[in-house]
Amino acid sequence: MERKAVVLYSGGLDSTTCMAIAREAGFIPYALSFSYGQRHAIELDKARENATRVGAREHLVIDFDYRLIGGSSLTTEQAVPKDGVVADSIPSTYVPARNSVFLSFALGWAEVLGAADIFIGVNALDYSGYPDCRPEFIAAFETMANLATRAGVEGSAQFRIHAPLILLSKADIVKRGLALGVDYRLTHSCYDPTPEGLACGLCDSCRLRLKGFAEVGMRDPIDYVERN
Amino acid sequence: MERKAVVLYSGGLDSTTCMAIAREAGFIPYALSFSYGQRHAIELDKARENATRVGAREHLVIDFDYRLIGGSSLTTEQAVPKDGVVADSIPSTYVPARNSVFLSFALGWAEVLGAADIFIGVNALDYSGYPDCRPEFIAAFETMANLATRAGVEGSAQFRIHAPLILLSKADIVKRGLALGVDYRLTHSCYDPTPEGLACGLCDSCRLRLKGFAEVGMRDPIDYVERN
Repeated sequence: MERKAVVLYSGGLDSTTCMAIAREAGFIPYALSFSYGQRHAIELDKARENATRVGAREHLVIDFDYRLIGGSSLTTEQAVPKDGVVADSIPSTYVPARNSVFLSFALGWAEVLGAADIFIGVNALDYSGYPDCRPEFIAAFETMANLATRAGVEGSAQFRIHAPLILLSKADIVKRGLALGVDYRLTHSCYDPTPEGLACGLCDSCRLRLKGFAEVGMRDPIDYVERN
Repeated sequence: MERKAVVLYSGGLDSTTCMAIAREAGFIPYALSFSYGQRHAIELDKARENATRVGAREHLVIDFDYRLIGGSSLTTEQAVPKDGVVADSIPSTYVPARNSVFLSFALGWAEVLGAADIFIGVNALDYSGYPDCRPEFIAAFETMANLATRAGVEGSAQFRIHAPLILLSKADIVKRGLALGVDYRLTHSCYDPTPEGLACGLCDSCRLRLKGFAEVGMRDPIDYVERN
């Protein structure tokens, strides 16, 4: 019997690598993205363009306006920090409860698809200090998921939240993805790209990505305004 | 200092009673509703009309299309059951992971508002057998919430999910609400109302509501097509 998995997919480096890992593990990926008012909406265009190219059987985009809730520079007019100070404290790009919302939708779709497995490309090492990217959050969500659902309660599925990148450095993630044949030209990570889609090279997300490629000794194949 | 609370608010009997309980406990209610493709969309019109009348300081409606995920007669063309068989097994009106999604949005809003308290009017006794209406789900969500958020992790808020109706019968809920001065004309519960907004009197939700009022010896003040 085929094993489906829901893969949270932003079109970025991490979630695309995560999708390759899910496939390698024998799952058929169902990619789930969100149009939630993020200022880097180009991310979503790229995700739409690339989801099936990078291995998803289906791609579902759920639309809601997180700007109504506010509280983050990713969804408001507040400036995205570009000072290169990474991970000292939780930065303004933190979106309150975002991964709880994303994983809850993933859980609903998984239950309908008959899938017990959900993949999320969060990362607790080379990350930006988000609380909902830590192993203890993932474990607590998994416990909750099995109490929240018909499939979990009736025992037809034991939900598992896979976070295969959680303890990897960005360099390790890139290495892993390259070994699995990921084409990183089909990924996009910048929090604040130009209207033409060039990555800024300065936001946390760009810095981490460039550092990852640099450590592997590879040139990042996407285009940047500036490279630090 | 004033204490804010996010109250999940459908405009129905339970959530309206829940809002009155939150006020009684000294909280200022911020009502949160969802337009998620529910077939009983009139519920939302009523919620918009009534939120501040029943005590909310603000009312936020978040819009997304749960029909994309499917899996429930509440959001698909599948018929709503009207056979009066209540709570034998989990019925088709179950919406996969709905309360996880709702509470996650509530958590995000609470964090932005500086509120630590979230009220949800779920009920595990006179209910329809939904897994995400049970105390063990609420407890697991609360644990997760405190690991998911900046406020939880930094200790500025200890999130608490209040489910004050969870062990009450529908009759007890009505009694409690009447004691707190709830005007039940400003509530609406039917899963499948007529276009004019009359409650069907036959779906699970109507049956439970009518039974509750009957047990209290009161006439339900809203209008029905049929009363069983």
